[in-house]
Amino acid sequence: MPPEIDIATVDLAGLQALAPRDAADGLLELAPPELASLFTRLGDESLAEVLSFLDPFDTARLMGKLSRGQAADVLEEMEPDDAADVMEQLEPADQEAILHEMDPEAAEDVRALLVYPPDSAGGVMTSAYLRMYPDMTADQALRALRVLAEEAETIYYIYITEPETERLLGVLSLRSLVLARPNQRLGDLVAPETIKVRVDVDQEDAARLFSRHNLLALPVVDAEGRLVGIITADDAAEILQEEADEDIERLGGSQPLEEPYLRAGPLRLYRSRILWLMALFVASAYTGNILKFYEKTLSEMVSLSFFIPLLIGTGGNTGSQIVTTLVRAMGTGEVSPSDALRVVRKELMTAVLLGITMAVATYVGTVFLGTAPELGRVVAVTAMCIVLWAALVAAVLPLVLRKLRLDPAVVSAPLITTLVDGTGLMIYFTAAQWLLHLD
Amino acid sequence: MPPEIDIATVDLAGLQALAPRDAADGLLELAPPELASLFTRLGDESLAEVLSFLDPFDTARLMGKLSRGQAADVLEEMEPDDAADVMEQLEPADQEAILHEMDPEAAEDVRALLVYPPDSAGGVMTSAYLRMYPDMTADQALRALRVLAEEAETIYYIYITEPETERLLGVLSLRSLVLARPNQRLGDLVAPETIKVRVDVDQEDAARLFSRHNLLALPVVDAEGRLVGIITADDAAEILQEEADEDIERLGGSQPLEEPYLRAGPLRLYRSRILWLMALFVASAYTGNILKFYEKTLSEMVSLSFFIPLLIGTGGNTGSQIVTTLVRAMGTGEVSPSDALRVVRKELMTAVLLGITMAVATYVGTVFLGTAPELGRVVAVTAMCIVLWAALVAAVLPLVLRKLRLDPAVVSAPLITTLVDGTGLMIYFTAAQWLLHLD
Repeated sequence: MPPEIDIATVDLAGLQALAPRDAADGLLELAPPELASLFTRLGDESLAEVLSFLDPFDTARLMGKLSRGQAADVLEEMEPDDAADVMEQLEPADQEAILHEMDPEAAEDVRALLVYPPDSAGGVMTSAYLRMYPDMTADQALRALRVLAEEAETIYYIYITEPETERLLGVLSLRSLVLARPNQRLGDLVAPETIKVRVDVDQEDAARLFSRHNLLALPVVDAEGRLVGIITADDAAEILQEEADEDIERLGGSQPLEEPYLRAGPLRLYRSRILWLMALFVASAYTGNILKFYEKTLSEMVSLSFFIPLLIGTGGNTGSQIVTTLVRAMGTGEVSPSDALRVVRKELMTAVLLGITMAVATYVGTVFLGTAPELGRVVAVTAMCIVLWAALVAAVLPLVLRKLRLDPAVVSAPLITTLVDGTGLMIYFTAAQWLLHLD
Repeated sequence: MPPEIDIATVDLAGLQALAPRDAADGLLELAPPELASLFTRLGDESLAEVLSFLDPFDTARLMGKLSRGQAADVLEEMEPDDAADVMEQLEPADQEAILHEMDPEAAEDVRALLVYPPDSAGGVMTSAYLRMYPDMTADQALRALRVLAEEAETIYYIYITEPETERLLGVLSLRSLVLARPNQRLGDLVAPETIKVRVDVDQEDAARLFSRHNLLALPVVDAEGRLVGIITADDAAEILQEEADEDIERLGGSQPLEEPYLRAGPLRLYRSRILWLMALFVASAYTGNILKFYEKTLSEMVSLSFFIPLLIGTGGNTGSQIVTTLVRAMGTGEVSPSDALRVVRKELMTAVLLGITMAVATYVGTVFLGTAPELGRVVAVTAMCIVLWAALVAAVLPLVLRKLRLDPAVVSAPLITTLVDGTGLMIYFTAAQWLLHLD
């Protein structure tokens, strides 16, 4: 139930006090004229502040309810990177029309950011940073700061560039500026080594540098080393969250959603799921063929079928445990394909322990079910083999995919379960034929 | 293969250039005397800088190779919160002995942090913050900064407290301090509203405030409103990453590991997995009973068993997709139990679409397999019902768990798969008995 927003009385603090989703829900409930009058009363700057907390998907929908002139006014007041995120959600025609209405300088900033792929460093950087030249003194810089601070997203880092080329020379923290003697040259104050990324680097690789080096912001340079933007720590944290979300969705066997879950309609959810569901269905269709192949064995001993769900379930569960742990460890950069041997050895040793336990457990289970002891032995041996086999598949597949430069999260828990289902059945019936001397 | 560290030549920059895991691997390879001599050559401060990037688990193992005096020297130089994280990995007796060797003031800081549960705001905060009083002027504050900056983890926020009680009055950013007139009182410069958390708040709730309010640091107060520490943005980002890791592990059906994956031996992995594996095994044991119950139906038509893996697989996959999406949306705070109706309606509508598609697909599948058309119809009807049923279970269970204040991630993909296995079989055989007039 979205909270009702009283448009006659609500103020900036009132909107900011709401959870982002509630604020979005409330604002989206309003009719376009109500929204427009609220926007007029609050002013563009306050609104930009509220909207920058919302999901860009929601902000874009709100923009659709405003006139293009109003939308342009609000986007002008947002940080360029936030504005670009919203723009990316709009149709190209709307993008152009709104950019046309914006202040040319602000439009230029946003346009420059829209050039880069959304998941590259260029796509997440902002152009609202402070740039100064090496010959300025600390005192001049502090005075300049007082003028420039309003426009910059962070004043905690000042970027020193070559006057002619705009190539990045180094970074100066506000901390060292405050601690410097007034007449020290900025060029002498910059940190000797500057951590920076190329504009075409993957956003996730850029974001990982933050915790590694305790950064508040990271400069982004082009192929010639010219400073083109910065990524701020809050955006880096958001990128890592998004990537975790995507890993989780893929591991669960869905295409990641682009919009927030509660905004996604049934058709959108259907599209994110049906592809994998069908792929898994096709992949598991062969289990029918396997069972048909063993039809004679099955009719000789129908009780063999009692343990099918249990055994393939155990294989799927083992595989799912390994895949989720391993894919995540690869996602955070902890494990790489060069660790393959170490991972496979560790997983197989673990699987031996798990396999023995499950063999004992399944044997005890068959006794409780009043199964013939010979069949109990078959089930126990199969459980052991299935656990080992599932562990091998689940440990090796993500590593191979990564080696092939594919996303290891494609090996979802459902995929491993499906892969292990059929081979598990073959193990089961082979064991049954050998140990029970069936056809 | 850990990189070999040449202890005769390596310097601080060389160690920092390594990935944290490689640095840890290399240092752990060294014999205690080698490590000790390296530590002496590099100096405590440099070492503290290297060690603060490693996983606290690894740092604690390195501490175990040093004398207690050396360990104390290094821990003294680390930020108090990092030192406390390392301490938490040590045995209580070692903790005490090392604290005893430390500089009393540094030991006191660490001891104060060890009091709080590791996953509370108090457990992740640091005591290295800047505190000033409201009657100081901006100019006095800037001069004080030059002296205090060395000790503080962040100088970008200055906390203003009441002189007598140490109650938090407000926060002042370095930004506003730099922009202020030299003779302005700090008390007049503080932001009117201060975002803060109680020391006993869950670390995850505290961490979520950062992106919501674009914070670089968050003050932590006790029940009386006294400032006791701050949480920094990099720690907040780490908390959210950890929580995502734990969600993923649980969704995959494992207990989250406390140490990095590559450090966990087979026995540790076994312990993190066997509990759920056994629980799922017990939960799925009833599938054997269900099949036994339908033994007569099965012997009449052995081909019914061909579709068992396919059908229960489809149910499990549908459930797994929903559970991962929903549990994550609840983990990030996007979905709460009050959205239950909206979620269930959305999921059931999606399930109708998915169910129809899967019914058609399974029917076509049975035709290819050369199955009798009557059986094909049973399989198709079952596929539709199983998808709907799995969706209902997977959408409702996590919401119910959250409502009961349990962790919704307990409903892992394997658990849903297991729950849907047995009920799916009942749906299948009921449909078969009705439509095929079997016993």
